[in-house]
Amino acid sequence: MRPLVITAGEPAGIGPDLILGLAANGAEVGRPWLAIGDPELFRQRAAQLDLAVEVVALADGEAPQMAPGRLSLWPVALRSPCQAGTLSLANAGHVLECLDVAIAACRAGRAAAMVTAPLHKGVIIEAGWTQFTGHTEYLRDACGIDEVVMMLATDDALHARQPGWQGDPGLRVALATTHLPLRDVADAITPASLGRVLRILDHDLRCDFGIARPRIAVCGLNPHAGEDGHLGREELEVITPTLEALRGEGLTLDGPLPADTLFTPRHLAGVDAVLAMYHDQGLAVLKYAGFGRGANLTLGLPIVRTSVDHGTALDLAASGRADGGSLRVALNLAAEMAAARAASA
Amino acid sequence: MRPLVITAGEPAGIGPDLILGLAANGAEVGRPWLAIGDPELFRQRAAQLDLAVEVVALADGEAPQMAPGRLSLWPVALRSPCQAGTLSLANAGHVLECLDVAIAACRAGRAAAMVTAPLHKGVIIEAGWTQFTGHTEYLRDACGIDEVVMMLATDDALHARQPGWQGDPGLRVALATTHLPLRDVADAITPASLGRVLRILDHDLRCDFGIARPRIAVCGLNPHAGEDGHLGREELEVITPTLEALRGEGLTLDGPLPADTLFTPRHLAGVDAVLAMYHDQGLAVLKYAGFGRGANLTLGLPIVRTSVDHGTALDLAASGRADGGSLRVALNLAAEMAAARAASA
Repeated sequence: MRPLVITAGEPAGIGPDLILGLAANGAEVGRPWLAIGDPELFRQRAAQLDLAVEVVALADGEAPQMAPGRLSLWPVALRSPCQAGTLSLANAGHVLECLDVAIAACRAGRAAAMVTAPLHKGVIIEAGWTQFTGHTEYLRDACGIDEVVMMLATDDALHARQPGWQGDPGLRVALATTHLPLRDVADAITPASLGRVLRILDHDLRCDFGIARPRIAVCGLNPHAGEDGHLGREELEVITPTLEALRGEGLTLDGPLPADTLFTPRHLAGVDAVLAMYHDQGLAVLKYAGFGRGANLTLGLPIVRTSVDHGTALDLAASGRADGGSLRVALNLAAEMAAARAASA
Repeated sequence: MRPLVITAGEPAGIGPDLILGLAANGAEVGRPWLAIGDPELFRQRAAQLDLAVEVVALADGEAPQMAPGRLSLWPVALRSPCQAGTLSLANAGHVLECLDVAIAACRAGRAAAMVTAPLHKGVIIEAGWTQFTGHTEYLRDACGIDEVVMMLATDDALHARQPGWQGDPGLRVALATTHLPLRDVADAITPASLGRVLRILDHDLRCDFGIARPRIAVCGLNPHAGEDGHLGREELEVITPTLEALRGEGLTLDGPLPADTLFTPRHLAGVDAVLAMYHDQGLAVLKYAGFGRGANLTLGLPIVRTSVDHGTALDLAASGRADGGSLRVALNLAAEMAAARAASA
């Protein structure tokens, strides 16, 4: 069975800590998993955290043996020694190399999905990758495609599609635009971009989440979804006509709806995902709702990729106080998506 | 004891229904209250809702007698017959007249505070008040001042300031900009506008909420609060220097913080209010958190004004299915703010 792989992310941050925490407890996700990073770094961090974890560097082609207290690694050496909590420009290339190894393994079918621990954008940009804007865009470019969609999900949303689930339905929120200055958002929402995003979202909810006929609720761009044009005209001129055309292609879409009423039980009932027009419109509520139990994922890729929904928390590295909830959700989610994709193939 | 007054709002909407619901149950807020609207409309709606409420039009200077099943009114006649659920351009003037009566009573000291049921902006604009943008701006202009601040609060936030409160701390979210198209938001955030808003927020948290030294958490404008300028420069050029200057005036301010991490327990602990830069950044999460138990209020006015946080719900008028939770919170909040203001005067 092909393994899941977890990239270590920024070595000075909490990524290694969280991965070691999963290994110490023997996270069971119905599929083997391993990490990609520097074995010495993991051994050193385990000692700092006083965690009894055996770190095993796998040879080419060797399968990971799953057991509590054992962490299997595909080794990628640091470029420079790493001190927990202290960024080093010299290791920016190491962070990207771990990503490259994971992407290549997923594309070649040696891994079933990849999960990413947090990296630090600033240090990568300062180290010379000046166009770097984040994992999501890096993966898009590495896979040679034009458009991906960023989605966040609370872990309840994983379970909500199971027959008989009676709990909190959870939230899945995808973004029409991601890491743009707010003043550039309105012009970035076009019929073409919105159409691409919604087709990807609909497709991947079918293939990666096993939802036969996804229902997507779409936020307006402006307050009150423009209030009939009184508070902005993008809903009338761009969003509504685009949704109408996509309904003609078979998509099931609600909206555009005001963002401040959409996230209420009446409008969320029966909805499989929400599309927010921009970052803070969707993610403030998602992270409030799913604090510590949310994960990030990238739709539209030829591979399955999930991620934690938090940053490197440099001040918590090696402290033992980092919360592994999001990484656990991301790993579970990757396993479920890999299974759904295999079933739909 | 000066009464609280509730304006009926759009007569075809659920405002009269909610007020009748409060009267039927005899809402006790430690102070008399009455409504402002058309007595015949309220009698007709009570009959449609099968509510046993006696509607009493007060004479000039007459004090309301509080009792379950009794609703006292300052009468303002409709301009045209009203059918529940059907808007009429002819009654737009009536809606504004009710507001004018409430504002005049508060300014003259005949009422302690005003609470507004929802109106319908579209019909007021179409009826000829083409510059009308909402209650908040109307009150600002009627009171002859330049700037007010819109804030929403969940009802838990009312209780949270009581000594010994152990429950959910609730949320208070104020807005730096309100009903603007999204593309106009960035340019509307200036050192002058942000300074005015934060000074009003700080002042009114002291006077109307009885908080001796308010702590305010401020959102960034851009995703990740601009991420050191990589995702927008307004934090570096406008927001951070403005907060620094205001700290010098004695305000206690956190931020600017990314909106999607600010609304989590770690950042909200000890915070008395959040300032969001724009409508959907703050209100999506507030309405998710406080669904059915949130209220709106206007800071910076010479009078106390609270409001429901929902619209006219025309389809629910006269149905008996409208939820009065927000109006009840708004009335409680008005009573508490009126008491705090009196104590601080």
